[in-house]
Parts: sequence; structure tokens; C-alpha cells
Amino acid sequence: MYRSHTNGELRIENVNSEVTLCGWVQKSRDLGAMTFVDLRDRYGITQLIFYKDPKSITLEHSRHIANFDEWSNNKELFESVKNLGREDVIQAKGKVIERESINNNIGTGKIEIVVTELTILNKSKTPPFTIEDETDGGEELRMQYRYLDLRRNPLQNNLKLRHRLSIEIRKYLDSINFFEIETPYLIKSTPEGARDFVVPSRMNPNQFYALPQSPQTFKQLLMVSGYDRYYQIVRCFRDEDLRADRQPEFTQIDCEMAFVDQEDVLNTFEGMMDYLFKKVKGIEVKAFPRMDYAFAMEQYGSDKPDIRFGMTFNYINEVAQNKGFQIFDDAEAVIAIVAEDCSTYTRKELDKLVDFVKRPQVGAKGMIYVKYNEDGSFKSSVDKFYSQEDLKAWADKCNAKAGDLILVLSGDKTETQNQMNVLRLHLGDELGLRNPNEYAPLWVYDMPLFEWDEDSKRYHSVHHPFTSPKEEDMNLLESDLGKVRSNSYDMVINGTEIGGGSIRIHDKEVQATMFKYLGFTKEEAQAQFGFLMNAFEYGAPPHGGIALGFDRLCALFGGQETIRDFIAFPKNNSGRDVMIDSPSPISLEQLDELNILIKPTTKFVE
Amino acid sequence: MYRSHTNGELRIENVNSEVTLCGWVQKSRDLGAMTFVDLRDRYGITQLIFYKDPKSITLEHSRHIANFDEWSNNKELFESVKNLGREDVIQAKGKVIERESINNNIGTGKIEIVVTELTILNKSKTPPFTIEDETDGGEELRMQYRYLDLRRNPLQNNLKLRHRLSIEIRKYLDSINFFEIETPYLIKSTPEGARDFVVPSRMNPNQFYALPQSPQTFKQLLMVSGYDRYYQIVRCFRDEDLRADRQPEFTQIDCEMAFVDQEDVLNTFEGMMDYLFKKVKGIEVKAFPRMDYAFAMEQYGSDKPDIRFGMTFNYINEVAQNKGFQIFDDAEAVIAIVAEDCSTYTRKELDKLVDFVKRPQVGAKGMIYVKYNEDGSFKSSVDKFYSQEDLKAWADKCNAKAGDLILVLSGDKTETQNQMNVLRLHLGDELGLRNPNEYAPLWVYDMPLFEWDEDSKRYHSVHHPFTSPKEEDMNLLESDLGKVRSNSYDMVINGTEIGGGSIRIHDKEVQATMFKYLGFTKEEAQAQFGFLMNAFEYGAPPHGGIALGFDRLCALFGGQETIRDFIAFPKNNSGRDVMIDSPSPISLEQLDELNILIKPTTKFVE
Repeated sequence: MYRSHTNGELRIENVNSEVTLCGWVQKSRDLGAMTFVDLRDRYGITQLIFYKDPKSITLEHSRHIANFDEWSNNKELFESVKNLGREDVIQAKGKVIERESINNNIGTGKIEIVVTELTILNKSKTPPFTIEDETDGGEELRMQYRYLDLRRNPLQNNLKLRHRLSIEIRKYLDSINFFEIETPYLIKSTPEGARDFVVPSRMNPNQFYALPQSPQTFKQLLMVSGYDRYYQIVRCFRDEDLRADRQPEFTQIDCEMAFVDQEDVLNTFEGMMDYLFKKVKGIEVKAFPRMDYAFAMEQYGSDKPDIRFGMTFNYINEVAQNKGFQIFDDAEAVIAIVAEDCSTYTRKELDKLVDFVKRPQVGAKGMIYVKYNEDGSFKSSVDKFYSQEDLKAWADKCNAKAGDLILVLSGDKTETQNQMNVLRLHLGDELGLRNPNEYAPLWVYDMPLFEWDEDSKRYHSVHHPFTSPKEEDMNLLESDLGKVRSNSYDMVINGTEIGGGSIRIHDKEVQATMFKYLGFTKEEAQAQFGFLMNAFEYGAPPHGGIALGFDRLCALFGGQETIRDFIAFPKNNSGRDVMIDSPSPISLEQLDELNILIKPTTKFVE
Repeated sequence: MYRSHTNGELRIENVNSEVTLCGWVQKSRDLGAMTFVDLRDRYGITQLIFYKDPKSITLEHSRHIANFDEWSNNKELFESVKNLGREDVIQAKGKVIERESINNNIGTGKIEIVVTELTILNKSKTPPFTIEDETDGGEELRMQYRYLDLRRNPLQNNLKLRHRLSIEIRKYLDSINFFEIETPYLIKSTPEGARDFVVPSRMNPNQFYALPQSPQTFKQLLMVSGYDRYYQIVRCFRDEDLRADRQPEFTQIDCEMAFVDQEDVLNTFEGMMDYLFKKVKGIEVKAFPRMDYAFAMEQYGSDKPDIRFGMTFNYINEVAQNKGFQIFDDAEAVIAIVAEDCSTYTRKELDKLVDFVKRPQVGAKGMIYVKYNEDGSFKSSVDKFYSQEDLKAWADKCNAKAGDLILVLSGDKTETQNQMNVLRLHLGDELGLRNPNEYAPLWVYDMPLFEWDEDSKRYHSVHHPFTSPKEEDMNLLESDLGKVRSNSYDMVINGTEIGGGSIRIHDKEVQATMFKYLGFTKEEAQAQFGFLMNAFEYGAPPHGGIALGFDRLCALFGGQETIRDFIAFPKNNSGRDVMIDSPSPISLEQLDELNILIKPTTKFVE
């Protein structure tokens, strides 16, 4: 038994108890006759006090200390505490006393420990950066010494939150009859979707396992097997060129239900989120609005709108075209948004917005503004073409009021929607309308089933090839694939897609048809997904499900952006773990046993 | 909404309710004027009843059925039910009525549903084997159609138990402040231990990740990081030649604690097991006996003794040697066990035991028996060498009583212990002393730190290189590595090792010393475990932990032997998933991107 209490545990009720504490030296302050040490562990900080001489103990304290004779080794003790450095691991025995100057910031702030015995369990070298909430260490150094960075409170709080969320998710799903069922990690490579990580099989030479991009087919098989409600908090793998804050391995809350329609799935997971917000954040979230994809694109130019703020799109072609302004006249769409109470924007501020939308990442050719002044007059960048009455008509069309600022982009409809989406979010940030501690979830549904891929010159699945088409769009399969909608839905919170799912195909013929439209030959479909299509012949129930990104959900609940801060041992943007230095070369013996060779880097001429 | 209730839900209180049920046709019985259908889902079975003609409804039933006019489509309905086959997926609407002949075996046995509307959701081909508790399908066929085998009750119960266990384990560990922290699956290959599965990195050519054999080093780093109490129910991977019932991927309950000694760890996980036995099995388990390794070997010839029964070893050298029986006289050990009340064993039964111990897998040269007859006389296979008094002395030495049977093996001590262990377990099985519904857990501790490996002619870690040596054996490190004991412990239940762990090394110097004795050069140790040894320089706390085999624990709680029956999608003994046909070849493009080649099978002569 190394300790009697943790460093977050002792309270005023414990005064006079003899205790043993363990932990890390957060800091020490030598005041001459006494030294204070802040002792830290996961649970908190407790103040230790070492006296040079028992006689130096203040009257206040001496009341609590019964036997000065036990302090014979006090000088020695006092000397040893002088050698303590930050992050040393120690064990301290002593007595709990009431603290003279209360620290209300910490739970243990009303007590301190007069130490009578000190054991140094392990010395620490000086850490390469400070173990404080705000550290002086750079990103790279902290990744290399991840085990030290993980000592800092912000990261400890993140991992604690992650644990709490995983526990509560499981509690909730268990309470409504979901079984967690583990699916295999060594599966089969399929070319559909992102790139697989593969694993050479030693026992089956020339053959490879693949790591799952998701347990999709297995969870569908579990529905065929009658498990009715499945979930798994499960690692998934994608060998993609990493963009910022993407991880090659990530964690998913993977769920599937049988005998359900879309409404059943949405209600179930809205229920889960309500529970989590309440239980983990203490927040009551309003019912999730539901918005079809077409509406979301029309109103927000995005399939994951941030609805914490308004500023929805107004299509003003009708009032803006045919007044001689060529740019609008030639445009497919003229889209306006209203920044409330922003008519006082200066020329400089407006120019910055113009620069913003003209950046190649946004790609607009320009931006028109209309100030609806407090006095009811209008001032715009197109006053040459439009009268005050014209601009009043714009304002009416946009439901703008005096004091507002109207911003207009125009051009190809889809492009303009995309650009306006970026501008809207940018303004939301600038105007402080995107509070990370406010949560605005919604469902977006009826996404397209297929999307055209310019590279491969064929249609791909938007979601995956097991998503069912909407009954009423089946007639479009032959005529216009791009228009076919699917029984799919995304959970969006604060402009981030937290998860998505669909009602699946459960009919073998429909599944075969889908593969055909995705350009699979019958043989390819059979070779890759034969087991699933065969399973559909033996009584597959109607089923559907969802997968939520757990890393992202944790970051969202933590009110932060970076998922890496919610993963204990993340990889960097090259997919490397710089702490353990992985990946790394393996031995020739290993390669040999696996029956593979490294390709020579020199290309030989044939 | 496909259904109003599940098939395990309706009770007598629901009589007269209009309900909609979904499920699989378990069986149907055509009785001429009516047809019964058993409708199955995960939750149970409900009996459906279809009448040919409303007029044929018995008086008893007609009381419950209000409006016969609604039954206009009855003939059609009755015809359609005739075409239902086993495993068809249907939706049935109807009214709950009281059942005439109650079935007490099922929760829904007091009611049945008079069906008024039937929808066939998906037809099923005839399954290749029967979906019954006892199926007619062979192992291989059932593995190929795993999704159908998983419909059977025994497997559904197993996976339900697995879910229940995982939920309760998490609840318990959460309640005592453990955090579940996910560690990476793409890590670094280390030659120590079993063979790694490796994953070629596309972004880091010529380099490989490895899949973890366990999160050992990461959990130790988490202790260095101050997480104090960590657990994870986590997949682990070992590329071993598979023995029966070994899986290349398996699940571990992985735990680690800081500031603990061995006693703290044992108490914590004994507490967890107590909780699980009580919560999941409704069983109160007595306190776990604790037994050191040396004692277990001496008394049971095994480091994982089954203590559901006695039959411990008696060393009878003293009374059995020097009486002219050369085989005993030459033996290092003469070991006897007592089979209670077995003096009536026939010659044939004894010969079978002799044959058993002489099998090459056991390897004994022979077996001596002594019957201690009810009348107090002795009959043995060595009566030529031993008098009745001699045999009485044996019996006394073994605490045998009249009516018992004494069985004796002799030879090299370790070999004889091993052989006697096998014989003891065999007798335990034969005599019905190993009841799978009785649970006898214990701790075995103080295992050797090193074991000699004949193949590599060097010492290996028994546990792993991070296990700490016993303080009092440190002086043996130079003189006799084989005698050094470790601070290690195994949890053993019913003769199966359910888990093991140790107090780890937390001192960099001790860790470096250990690597030296394991034959690592300083450079090798640094290259492979440098990150861990570096971490030890920054204030590593004393720590220790345990890992429990979750698949095995599930089988044990299920009272069964085969872990494969507790894994949804297991692999066969060649590491193949025959259902999805994996592993499988991958495309040349994939190989090319990964910068690897398949080794040509033809060996070229240089």
C-alpha cells in the first residue's frame, strides 16, 4: 500500500488524520524556515509543508502536531526536500492540518500536510518543457515526449472526457437493448472506398488481410443473423494521404438496427445525444431540426450547416438581374446574406472580406455589398447600376432591416453556394456567432446516392454501395443517376458532420443492381461482396444504421477543434508516431517469413 | 415503425391489444382449418395463428375477436401462410389472445396472435443446416455460413453473455476510477515475444507498422503520464502457428495501476471477479486462495492447478524406495495421488489408465496402483516388492483410507510432476470432479523471471522483459538466472490461466540490466525500447498490472471450452475467415503503392 489517499481527496474533515500520499512534485517554494511542495496526481494537488525545525512551527500549526519527539530526523528531512526537483516522484507521510491561507481553487485547498517522512520513489530529469496548463513546449517536442505532454491538465481532462463519453454511450445503448459485438480486424481488402491498410499473411503465402475501414459488412451480417441491435466502439483504418487533423486510425461508434425505418434510427440516436449532452455536459438540447439535403444546400450551401446562427441564403436573381449589371445578368445564381447590425463596416473591413472570398481556396471573382444604413438609405458597391428603390427591393427580398449589411456573390449556382458557405462561416466566426459551448445539432437527410467522379469517369457511392435508394427515385436509375436520392442521413453539430448512416439494401437483386450502376461486373461483385449477397438470400431483415466519429465527438464535447488532443497516442501528418519512431524497417527474416520483398528503389531498364 | 413489440415481450396483460410483430419463421404447423407459425427474433418466440375461415374460430377464441368483417381477405391470408418457409422474414399484424394450451417454457407462452395481415419482408432459401439448438450442420459448413449459425440460440446466448460481461467489467472498473484509454493499433515491430503481424506503410516506404501483441509499453507510458488507473478491452494480435482454439486476433482486458504493490493488484481484480461472478452468474465465490508457483508445482505439477478437487501430490520416496523395486529406487521422485473410493476399479479400468499415461503426449513409462480395499487389505501391481505393511505406510503417507485407490508415477521430478498433472486432471474428468458450473479461482504468484530456451540457447522472459525481479533474488542474477523469481501473478480458474500480470520495473537502470540478461545489446535495447527507458528518466511511478483473456473468460462464464463459440466471426486453424474468404490476394497496384513485391516461388539459381 503506497498511499492512503490520492491528492484530490483530503478535506477539512480529515484534519488530524495520519496520511500517506504519492505523486509528482509540481513545484516547491523554499521560505527559509519551511518549504511548501505541491504534490500532484490525476486527482488533484495537495500542499505539503516541511519545517526546518519543529520549534519553528507556528502556534496555529503546533496545535495539530502531537508529538514533536517523533521529529528527530527533521533536519535530514528538511535537507532532502531541498533537493526535490519538478516531476520527482515521492511518497510523503504526515498529518493533515487546517490550512492558514485557504485556496478555493482546488478541492484540497482547506488543508495541508505536515510531512514527517519523505521517500523519493523516482528522480526525474528536468522535463524538456513545463508540465503546466500553458506549456512552453512546441508541437513537435511535445509529440516526441507525448508521455510528458499527457501529464498536463488539458490533456488529462480530454482523456477523462473521452472515457466518460465512452462509458455513457455504452450505458445508454445497453439500456435500449443494443449488444456490443466485436467484429474482426483482420478482414479482406476491397477496392471500393478509400485505400486499405493490408497485412501479409505468413500462413497463407501471397495473401493479405486488410484492416477494416469500418465494420460495415459485418454489422449488416449481424442483422441477417438476428442480433437486432448492434453497436461497437471500434477502431477503423484508412490509408489516405493525411490532411490536417486526420488520423490513419480512428474510432467510430458503429451501430446497426433491424426492422427499422429512417425515423426509428434518427429517434434512437437523437435520444443518445440528448442523454450524452445532459449526462456529460449538463446541457438540455432542443429537438434536432431535420433538413433535407436539397434544403441545406439551398439555404446554407453546405450539407453540414452550422445552425448556431442564421444568415441563410437569399436568391435575389429576380430583383437584381436585368438592371444593366452584366455580372449579375450573366449569373445563374445571385445569392445574398445579411450580416445583422453590420452596416457600419468600414471600407477596410469590406475590402478584407472581398480579399477573403477572392482567395483561391474560396474562388469568388468578387463580392458586392449593400449597407442598409440606420437612416434608411442604402450605400452599395453597385450604386452605378441600382437605385435606392432597387436596393430596397433587395433588402425586402432578404428581410434585411436598417443597420444591416447585405453581401452578395454570384455565378454558377453550385459554385456560388459553396463560396457563400465559406463566407457565411467566416462571418459567423468574425461576429462571434459560433460559440464552442453552444450546441446546435441537426439531421440532414436524403443525400444523393451517387456522385460523379471526374478522375475515374464514373459514378461512385456518396455513402457506400449498401445504401438503399429512395423508392420514389428508382425510376431515375436508368435516366439520371446523379439525381437519385438515398435513404441516408447525417448527424451534424455546429457545422461538423459527427456521423452518418443509411437504411441499407436488404434485397439481393437491388444490391446486385446497385453494384451494376457502380460499374462492378457480376464477377467482381461476387468476388468482393458475394458473402453479403449470399447472406441476403437467407432471410435478411430490413435494417439500417449509423456510424459516429468518436474522436470528433470528443473534441466537440471538449469545445475544441483538434481531435489529436483527444487521442492518447496520435500520429503526425505523415502517419508517424514520433514517440516510438514508427513505422520502422523490419528484419530480413520477417520479410522472408512473410514471403515479400521490398521493391528495389533503383529502376532497372528492361 | 415495423413492429410494435418484439417476440419476447407479450404477456397475458397484453390480451386484446392490436400488435405488429416481425421476425423469422421458426416453423409452421398446418392443422387444416388453422396454421400455427412460431415467429422468432433475438428476444424470443411468439406463436401466430392463422384461421382458414373466421367461422372456424373456436368459441374460446371468438370471444377475443371483435369484428369478423375485417377478415374479408382471410382466404388469401390463409393461402399465403401456406407458402411460408423456414427463415422467411415476415411482418404480422393481429390481436393478442389468451392461449388455450399454455407453454411454460417460453415467456410468451400464455398468449398467441390471431393474425389479420401478413407481409413477407424477405423470402429465405432453405438454409444449408437447421437453425435449431442442436443443428445438423458440420463445423466447416457452419463456419462458411457463420451468419446463419449465429442465428442459433446457443451462439446468441454466448454473444449476449459476452456483451453483458464487457458492460459489467467496464461498470466495475469505472466505479473504482479506472479510465479506459485507447492505445494505437499501428505500432512498431519488436522481435521480443511472439511473431508480429506487420503492415507496410505506403507513406513511409520500406517501413512497417506492427499490430500490437498487447498494449504493454503504452499502458506503462500511461502510468508514467500519471493516469493512475488504466484499462482497455482491446484486440491483440499474434502471428503464431495456430493450435486448436487459438485465434490470431484475440481480446484482452488490459489493466495497469500506479503506486501499487502486488497485493493491491490482486485485491482489485479479485474484487472485479467477485463482482462479475455475482452480477453475471449469480454466484458468490469464496476468497481466492493464493499459492506460490513453487507450491503449485509441488502439489499439482502445474502452474494453473484446477482446485475444484483435491488429489494433490504425495512424495513417497521415503517409504517406497530401497525395497528392491529398481524403478522407484532409480527415480528422483515417486509421486502418488489418491482417487477416493476407487478401490473397486477393475483390471480393465486400471489398464486403460496405464495406457493413458503411456501415450506419447503424457510420456510416462508406466503406472503403479495400490487398491486399499474396504476390508483394510492392499492389492497392488508391485505386490512382489512390497508387503502389506509397506503399502500401509504408503497409504498413511498419502492420507488414503480404506476404499481408496493410490496411483503412483516415478522418474525425473519435473517430468513426473508434469505426467502426474495430466493423470490427475484426467481422473478428475473421469470421476466428474470438474463441474463446469462450479468455479474455483486462485492466484499463483512468484513465477520464475527467466526460462531457458533450448532453440536459441539463451534465457527468455517468462512474462515479458518489463517484469520486476523479486528484491530478495537480485543476488541470483549473476549466479543462477533460472532461480530468479519475479513479482508476477496469474489468475487461474478451473485449471485455466485467465490472466496474468506483474509489478513492473520503473527504474531505468534495472530495466537496462534486465535487457542485458535477456541478451540485448545496449543498442538493440535502445532501438526497440528506448522510448520506454527514456520515459523512466522523467519520474516513473511504481506500477503494475494485469491482462485477462476476454475470450477465455467468456467461455468460462458460459461453462464451455471453445473460445471460437464466443467470437462472432472467428478464424479457422489456418487463420482464415472462410465466410469472407480472407486473407486473399491483393492487386498489383496495391502492392506497387506499398513498395513491396511477392517473392517469386521459383528459386533462381545464381
